Amino acid sequence: MAEAEKLVGAVGPACPTLTAVVAHRPLNGHGVQLRDGLLCTWQRRNRTASLPLALRQLESAGNLNNLRLAISGVNGGYQGPAFMDSDIYKTLEAISWELGRTADSDLAEFAAETTALLAKAQLDDGYLNSCIQVTGRRRYARLESSHELYCAGHLIQAAIAAGRSYDGGALLSVARRFADHLVSTFLGGQGGLDGHPVVESALVELYRQTGTRAYLQLASQFVEGRGYGRIGDSGLGIRYLQDSQPIRELAALAGHAVRALYLESGVVDVATETGDERLLASSISRWDDMVSTKTTLTGSSGSRHSGEAFGDAFELPPDRAYNETCAAIASFQWSWRLLLATGDPKYADLMERVLYNGFGAAVSADGRRFSYVNPLQRRGDHFENDDPGSRREWFSCACCPPNIMRLIASLDHYVATTAEDALYLHLLTPSRISARLAGADLSVEVATDYPWDGRVRVGVRSAPMTDCGLAVRIPAWSREQSVRLNGEHIEGAANRAGYLLLRREWHPGDMLEIGLDVQPRFTYPNRRIDALRGTVALERGPLVYCFEQADQPTGMSIEDLAVNPGVIAERPTSIPDVGPTVVLEADAVHLSPTEPEGLPYLAHPDAGTDDHRATAVAVPYFQWDNRDGRAMRIWMPVRAPTVRPSPRTRPPWGWARSPQDAK
Amino acid sequence: MAEAEKLVGAVGPACPTLTAVVAHRPLNGHGVQLRDGLLCTWQRRNRTASLPLALRQLESAGNLNNLRLAISGVNGGYQGPAFMDSDIYKTLEAISWELGRTADSDLAEFAAETTALLAKAQLDDGYLNSCIQVTGRRRYARLESSHELYCAGHLIQAAIAAGRSYDGGALLSVARRFADHLVSTFLGGQGGLDGHPVVESALVELYRQTGTRAYLQLASQFVEGRGYGRIGDSGLGIRYLQDSQPIRELAALAGHAVRALYLESGVVDVATETGDERLLASSISRWDDMVSTKTTLTGSSGSRHSGEAFGDAFELPPDRAYNETCAAIASFQWSWRLLLATGDPKYADLMERVLYNGFGAAVSADGRRFSYVNPLQRRGDHFENDDPGSRREWFSCACCPPNIMRLIASLDHYVATTAEDALYLHLLTPSRISARLAGADLSVEVATDYPWDGRVRVGVRSAPMTDCGLAVRIPAWSREQSVRLNGEHIEGAANRAGYLLLRREWHPGDMLEIGLDVQPRFTYPNRRIDALRGTVALERGPLVYCFEQADQPTGMSIEDLAVNPGVIAERPTSIPDVGPTVVLEADAVHLSPTEPEGLPYLAHPDAGTDDHRATAVAVPYFQWDNRDGRAMRIWMPVRAPTVRPSPRTRPPWGWARSPQDAK
Repeated sequence: MAEAEKLVGAVGPACPTLTAVVAHRPLNGHGVQLRDGLLCTWQRRNRTASLPLALRQLESAGNLNNLRLAISGVNGGYQGPAFMDSDIYKTLEAISWELGRTADSDLAEFAAETTALLAKAQLDDGYLNSCIQVTGRRRYARLESSHELYCAGHLIQAAIAAGRSYDGGALLSVARRFADHLVSTFLGGQGGLDGHPVVESALVELYRQTGTRAYLQLASQFVEGRGYGRIGDSGLGIRYLQDSQPIRELAALAGHAVRALYLESGVVDVATETGDERLLASSISRWDDMVSTKTTLTGSSGSRHSGEAFGDAFELPPDRAYNETCAAIASFQWSWRLLLATGDPKYADLMERVLYNGFGAAVSADGRRFSYVNPLQRRGDHFENDDPGSRREWFSCACCPPNIMRLIASLDHYVATTAEDALYLHLLTPSRISARLAGADLSVEVATDYPWDGRVRVGVRSAPMTDCGLAVRIPAWSREQSVRLNGEHIEGAANRAGYLLLRREWHPGDMLEIGLDVQPRFTYPNRRIDALRGTVALERGPLVYCFEQADQPTGMSIEDLAVNPGVIAERPTSIPDVGPTVVLEADAVHLSPTEPEGLPYLAHPDAGTDDHRATAVAVPYFQWDNRDGRAMRIWMPVRAPTVRPSPRTRPPWGWARSPQDAK
Repeated sequence: MAEAEKLVGAVGPACPTLTAVVAHRPLNGHGVQLRDGLLCTWQRRNRTASLPLALRQLESAGNLNNLRLAISGVNGGYQGPAFMDSDIYKTLEAISWELGRTADSDLAEFAAETTALLAKAQLDDGYLNSCIQVTGRRRYARLESSHELYCAGHLIQAAIAAGRSYDGGALLSVARRFADHLVSTFLGGQGGLDGHPVVESALVELYRQTGTRAYLQLASQFVEGRGYGRIGDSGLGIRYLQDSQPIRELAALAGHAVRALYLESGVVDVATETGDERLLASSISRWDDMVSTKTTLTGSSGSRHSGEAFGDAFELPPDRAYNETCAAIASFQWSWRLLLATGDPKYADLMERVLYNGFGAAVSADGRRFSYVNPLQRRGDHFENDDPGSRREWFSCACCPPNIMRLIASLDHYVATTAEDALYLHLLTPSRISARLAGADLSVEVATDYPWDGRVRVGVRSAPMTDCGLAVRIPAWSREQSVRLNGEHIEGAANRAGYLLLRREWHPGDMLEIGLDVQPRFTYPNRRIDALRGTVALERGPLVYCFEQADQPTGMSIEDLAVNPGVIAERPTSIPDVGPTVVLEADAVHLSPTEPEGLPYLAHPDAGTDDHRATAVAVPYFQWDNRDGRAMRIWMPVRAPTVRPSPRTRPPWGWARSPQDAK
């Protein structure tokens, strides 16, 4: 590969080469600065609350000590599961993205010290894995469960983040030595298939970063090598390990959700770098299948506790939804790659749904507790083994917390792309965005209170002296919208979702104003989702809402509420321990509590008996579980008999909530 | 304990002593002979198909070889999970009950040879566990997971079955030596709490069989010792092991279902033998809680795959119902003990529901395949790990198949009891039953085609020369029934469930005729069961029905059917590979298949669009999965909008199906 093909100044986690077959490209350079807004707040919380906690946990849980044992050559004393190193790598990746934006001496010091530890622990031939080195187990002997290449993949991803953000090359050098070792060990053979994918996309990214084509070849080999039952059995079968069918023949995701989803990022990366349209098409068809049959309203997937796995089609139980946080992250990363490959807004729509709901709920409001499992319902008496099901500081299997941190730290890289001399805005959040278009910079400032408010103002700060495009994603949930350019309504944009693309010669001071329809709305499940029959959920803009016991009047159990779909009231407020929010209120009936005697099965339909009218109060799902740990549900029974709600009267479009902002 | 208190000629698996505080007593001697009928057919199938298969599997899976290794003193080579011995013991128990009824040289030879192996493998101090002996692990060092006392419990139960059925004492002697060793090791200490209960009820039964009070004391210690977190952690927490709360304070079953349910048999056994009413009351209140909030329509419990555990209250998903077969067996055994303790017919009602549904479905029609998990729904694309979810010959964890065999082999012992000079019939099945009442034998012959037919004729063959009682259980599902004695209607019996008790001086030739209402009926879930909202099931007599894809017309997916509750047609028939049955047919609509694009969530309720009227065909659940392995559901969507079905016209009571049988 010619040097010219390498990306210079790439900053995001996934930066296709110039020869890659992609429709969109991430921004070069420091293209996006988040400014205030919810996502910016999340990044600040990540840096000030979450990452310091991770640093303490990596010490107390033994991850760092495992490295020290490896350095000292001691045999024995290893702590934790086999993939403890990966928690360190994910944390380093998060720190790298942070340091690319903001100086932080504590984080920088940790990164430098830990990088030095890793360099010392690495063996002469490039191999590095504290578990294998400290326990004395044989390398690559149990790849179905040893996570050796999984850890290598996270090391590579961390090193790329460091290399693209702040690092002079120390961590990247460790990663390249390991990657070169992997190439010399596995390239051309049939082995090297790790039970847990992630190394595939990491190797492609390392190829993108360095131009070394062998990394891409090895990634391709790993992707194509699965599906022949060669990996072995970790106890949960070959579907669990994505080894039941060759990837090109696989119609639907199955098995362990995080593994399946990480693998798809690798599939798309290989497909776009090699221009393999059939391989890309197979991944797209699995994405479509996942979204239409195996995805929750919160954008999450992997519904089964058993095997942390995808369930059957339409197996989407709210209470037993496993929805591992890492699966939400992996899904987000996969969708991003498909968005780059195709430019289809459906991928950005899912990313947004995941981000603000399934993923957003994985962190407490204070950034100090994390969830591994993200159900859509928690009963008041809930226990999972000995765990009542609230967020925790850390886990014995701590894959999720540092994974959350690395995604939040890198969120700015997912905000915008370019395609054909146009700047595309995918995530609508307060930000300054600059992109090189038509030989000059198009710089815009996005002002919005999104996701709370549907108004998005994109002001041009500087622009090329020629035509170029500016595109804003209109989310599919917005049923109609107003679009004004410099105060003039743009007709024809009102009922179209997707990218609203305007091509013109832009001038500083140009103002594009989008008004999305964030009116609260009722959402119903497809009839094939058995577990949700007869229920309804509330959404507002990109946010899925939930009913927490904490918000209902004393004595009114959410298990005895049935919602009457009609007008929904909204109330901006700030809730102690939760923060600023918009609360929704829906008409409901409180049903007489049931006290079953004998079997809970009856000779007549049981929709409950109305006790009194009530108001059911909902908060955004991403803000749940910051108070009392009591019951929650997203999907509420519809007050029976089920009737189609009469078409509700909608106010004419306008800035009803804050008239002073309207022009 | 005085010798007089011991039971002589006790034959069943649970025979309280004469001083036990119980309302009912099992029949002494060979009190029940099953004659033809469904249960008798099951026993024959068990002897001719299932048990020979078990004998082969115990050889090929290595269970017997483990014993041989233990005898030879070889260290290493042990095969299978730690509790492989228990599969042998359950098989021996099944064989014992069989040999108590029917001579079978193959089974007798296996029992004799295996008993000899066990006697040889047993160590001098009475200890016996092939896993510990062959692996060289330390005894009792990991009781939270080693299953040593669990295996001991099953040995004792097998030995008691042998002692009560045919054995001269060889197996009982092995069991007593082990039990004596347990007493000397654990009685008076705080240890000896096995992660998996079963030894508790086994020790009580050994006390009942031998009169050795130390066994009862040790059982009591084991029951009372749980709940203080002393057992340790097998990885799934202390709830999993029933170690989170002292048994007297425990309000609801939690954790691993089989463990929790086996423990309850021990609790009731200890409570009845010691006359401890508070201990008994605590078990009863947990039974009530389980039945009203954690039991499926099929009588099964333990809904969670994760941890094979009880879920939260009303967490009863049909598709993900775990419903382990062993849990159904354990529930049956617990209910039987509560029935003996209290005489309350609700326990017999649940036993019947379990027997014909949740348990009955665990065996294929040919008796050669068994299910471990018993869901109430299987989608067409179902996979659980690599398993499409059909019955199998055996399992790597093979607890269920031999457990099924021991219950079926002992079914005759659960048919009847005596209480206060009355004979109580609990399971209505063709049989000859004799009981010692008022100093003489009351012998009856039960003629019925139950569960297919609701007519039950109880003819007196011989009777004491004085008043005594004859009681027949009227199941709670029978909404009205006719009762005739010697052709005369007995008024007032029509609307009462429970035991219909007639006290009189009976004479040979007396004929009591009960006509139960086995008309097919619709059953609806309590509104608190979220996973079943908007659905309806079909039952007929004690049988729960299910809709299998195999019975619907080609091209009509059961996922596109919605049932219109109205008249149900019934059709007696015989289905190849299934056997004699009564098929039910319900009005339904076939809905237009959905092809979701994008997320399966909509802005309006989705009850589906009627395509055409259809007839949905159902077979008894216990007969499912004998054909093509395709989709099945018990709970079908009610055609929306949900309306209360108009009161259906019921034919006047009569013998409509076979008029020639009516008087």
